[in-house]
Amino acid sequence: MTNRIQLYDTTLRDGTQRRGISLSVEDKLQIAQLLDEFGFDYVEGGWPASNPKDTMFFQLAKTRLTHAKLTAFGSTRRRGVFVEDDANLRAILDAQCPVATLFGKSSVFQATQILGLSLQDNLEMVEESIQFLRQHDLEVIFDAEHFFDGCKSDVDYALQVLRAAEAGGAQWIVLCDTNGGSLPHEITEYVELARRAVSVPLGIHAHNDSGLAVANSLAAVIGGATMVQGTINGYGERCGNANLCTIWPNLVYKMNRQAGRELMLKELTRLSRTVAEIANLMPDDSAPFVGDNAFTHKAGVHVGAVRKFPEAYEHVHPESVGQSRRILVSELAGKSNLLYNFHNLDASSETVTELVQTVKKLEARGYQYEDAPSSMKLLVERSLGNVPSYFEVDRFHASVTKDQRMISEATVRIIIGNEHFVEVGEGDGPVNSLDVALRKALSQIYPIIEGLRLKDYKVRVLDGRDGTGALVRVWIRSEFRDETIQTVGVSRNILEASWQALLDSVDYALWVSHTVPAHLGKQSQPL
Amino acid sequence: MTNRIQLYDTTLRDGTQRRGISLSVEDKLQIAQLLDEFGFDYVEGGWPASNPKDTMFFQLAKTRLTHAKLTAFGSTRRRGVFVEDDANLRAILDAQCPVATLFGKSSVFQATQILGLSLQDNLEMVEESIQFLRQHDLEVIFDAEHFFDGCKSDVDYALQVLRAAEAGGAQWIVLCDTNGGSLPHEITEYVELARRAVSVPLGIHAHNDSGLAVANSLAAVIGGATMVQGTINGYGERCGNANLCTIWPNLVYKMNRQAGRELMLKELTRLSRTVAEIANLMPDDSAPFVGDNAFTHKAGVHVGAVRKFPEAYEHVHPESVGQSRRILVSELAGKSNLLYNFHNLDASSETVTELVQTVKKLEARGYQYEDAPSSMKLLVERSLGNVPSYFEVDRFHASVTKDQRMISEATVRIIIGNEHFVEVGEGDGPVNSLDVALRKALSQIYPIIEGLRLKDYKVRVLDGRDGTGALVRVWIRSEFRDETIQTVGVSRNILEASWQALLDSVDYALWVSHTVPAHLGKQSQPL
Repeated sequence: MTNRIQLYDTTLRDGTQRRGISLSVEDKLQIAQLLDEFGFDYVEGGWPASNPKDTMFFQLAKTRLTHAKLTAFGSTRRRGVFVEDDANLRAILDAQCPVATLFGKSSVFQATQILGLSLQDNLEMVEESIQFLRQHDLEVIFDAEHFFDGCKSDVDYALQVLRAAEAGGAQWIVLCDTNGGSLPHEITEYVELARRAVSVPLGIHAHNDSGLAVANSLAAVIGGATMVQGTINGYGERCGNANLCTIWPNLVYKMNRQAGRELMLKELTRLSRTVAEIANLMPDDSAPFVGDNAFTHKAGVHVGAVRKFPEAYEHVHPESVGQSRRILVSELAGKSNLLYNFHNLDASSETVTELVQTVKKLEARGYQYEDAPSSMKLLVERSLGNVPSYFEVDRFHASVTKDQRMISEATVRIIIGNEHFVEVGEGDGPVNSLDVALRKALSQIYPIIEGLRLKDYKVRVLDGRDGTGALVRVWIRSEFRDETIQTVGVSRNILEASWQALLDSVDYALWVSHTVPAHLGKQSQPL
Repeated sequence: MTNRIQLYDTTLRDGTQRRGISLSVEDKLQIAQLLDEFGFDYVEGGWPASNPKDTMFFQLAKTRLTHAKLTAFGSTRRRGVFVEDDANLRAILDAQCPVATLFGKSSVFQATQILGLSLQDNLEMVEESIQFLRQHDLEVIFDAEHFFDGCKSDVDYALQVLRAAEAGGAQWIVLCDTNGGSLPHEITEYVELARRAVSVPLGIHAHNDSGLAVANSLAAVIGGATMVQGTINGYGERCGNANLCTIWPNLVYKMNRQAGRELMLKELTRLSRTVAEIANLMPDDSAPFVGDNAFTHKAGVHVGAVRKFPEAYEHVHPESVGQSRRILVSELAGKSNLLYNFHNLDASSETVTELVQTVKKLEARGYQYEDAPSSMKLLVERSLGNVPSYFEVDRFHASVTKDQRMISEATVRIIIGNEHFVEVGEGDGPVNSLDVALRKALSQIYPIIEGLRLKDYKVRVLDGRDGTGALVRVWIRSEFRDETIQTVGVSRNILEASWQALLDSVDYALWVSHTVPAHLGKQSQPL
């Protein structure tokens, strides 16, 4: 029995059935190339009969993949239609992929009640459709929909459907837990049954409605399946598909299987985050292996242990999946957490104790330093007296007027030593305008600020219970030279919260570049 | 063998180790009462030696729970200290709970390397600590930390630790997969081993680092465990604890076990959402059973099937966990989706086809109607010519000035028939001020608007790649009489996006109350 498990990705088809996802052709191409780079074996690119956008994708993707086999998805022929005349199958041929995945019902209830077929009809549709595509030299994978439910109510028929697929020439038969309701031991049992019924290699396609998609996929592998279908980050309809970012490292690191391009496993986190960014979805911070929290330790007692022996609370090395260990400074923390992150603190000093208290108080007011290490750094360094005052904010004003057009404008007045600077900025909105005005004012004295670029901006309303008067937390990510700066601001006023985060990013850039404050009389050149 | 599984909740202790959670004493009391209402058997209230805040919680909670047993968490005595003198154990006694949960190492590596103990020391600490608390008439649960890793490296010692706990009088022994790295079949195997080693009933405490916490908990039950420890919504350190909102319905609906107050299972979704709200965390929309997407169907082919037979793609009835089925209108949808939601549409008309196109276009521009059914309704009803124009917006202006103080102000000018109304509003921030000004202006002509209350406000930056110039989507939830109104607005300008959502909420309230537009000459009383 082979040790290698085929990884079959359906992010571009099943994954897009997740609420809130909408991928352009270019998005799909980027993701397909990424999957190819990571050694995925099959990339299900779309459902040509259902989505005409996919035809263009298939054309363009053809020349871009060097390893992964592009796959077109579709249904078996319709009842009463000849295979040659069936639009579904025609669309698959037109996609000109090397591989086709056909889905068909493997449950009595689904075939008869949902599709209104006779049991014999269904078997013929399955066999003929597969045979037709095989005659056109496609590799054919058969997705046996509702297989596990089918087994539970009428196992003989479910197995008959598999045999029909085998007779049609399918090279893979994938057993689908389509409504996501099965348990792992049931999966193993029925996969073993299927192995005795057909000689074709088997795959598993699980859904997460019971929180068991990963477990069910691994249980199928234990039962003898050698292909796992899933999506990056578990995207999919309802509660999602089986998460390949969880399954892949489990297969390789825990179950001694081979899968994908294993050298790339140590960049798994990059794969997960990049796909999330392309799909414009927030990453799941608690995701196994790749989530921001996966190797983040908070409780004091864990932190103490982890400093001595990382494996104390980690099941795999963070680096093996492209992460590194993080220790949070938070209210559950003690000095351990601060000391882990800031090596210039004197463990025995009062300053450290006060700092822990200060952080706890600020966090209670809504500040979150876990995501804003630059603001945290400023807080610590200011407490040690290491951060000078670079400028004073005298006033700011931001406004939005909608009359015929929408106009956003902001003015900022800052004081540096004896001089003051007033500047106006225009922008897409009030925050953008403030940002523009601030930079205009500052870069006259601190030209280095022109190298500070705002990259990402997030707003979170903290306690929605007060409607539009709620506390708001703004997070900003900037790039400055080669460094990423992340800062935070909190207020009931979204402009003020944004302003705090902007000021921290500017202060940090000036501080980290050792800029001398202009009002100290020297030319403000960075050292 | 009993059919009943004890549900042990540690949301208030292990759950708080999740990044981003910080619960006040009042928050903890609310959650504890909720757990009590749902029939949870044990509520681990805190860790008194580690968190002084917990002492107050234990005092106040004592009188409020009618079913659940309040539990204090803590470690076995320290090395070289007598039990009577140990501060940990003293803190547990002072909490005056009926139950104590003590954790101790059950792995050679953990005991010797992390804690620096001799193997014999560790056994004595376990036995003596438990015995001490039993002598004080507490029910004692022993959490065997790192049990599964311990078994993998030195199974004899791991079992010795369990026997020491049994000798000390522990009434429950909970096997912990502390670093979350075990697989389900390993869990079942070692639980069965433990059952042969001790006579004390066993529990399971799983972590989700491999995406298997739920599966591991169920595997332990299959192996004979009769207690499951976990948290609501799977909150916890790193990738979280075992999610009791997933485990409980699986146990009752799939595994024929009894657990909790089963009548309350059909309000499970309320439990999950309320705890998320108290913890001030966004709910996980894709969570099994309780997530907003769990019974939400998007793809056209699923929708068609589900309209005929709901069980086609649902593994349990949505009502059995406090949900109802939802069909999304989205770009993957066809007419089926619109027709499911809007019964006054004529399936054959051009209007429906155009509407589907319009929705797809708007969604491509960032609008999300899945969360904003009131905006969707307005869109549909406007296309049918059913929504009159209640007022015209001539101008608005919003500004924020920070000088000595922070001042937010907005002016709104609206036209109704021949009259115009200009009003100014002050507020915590620009959006709040706009909201105040708008209501001031409108309620002079439409007094019914005073019954419209803004309840929740969310902002999402859609494509962070453009920094502060990014597209922003604002969602607003309002209450109007007994109805919940949810509306959306999208723009690069956050004030304009908020304004759109506010206007939709006002239009919806006026339309749903059959208000006659004032400029039609009649008194604008609702029918």
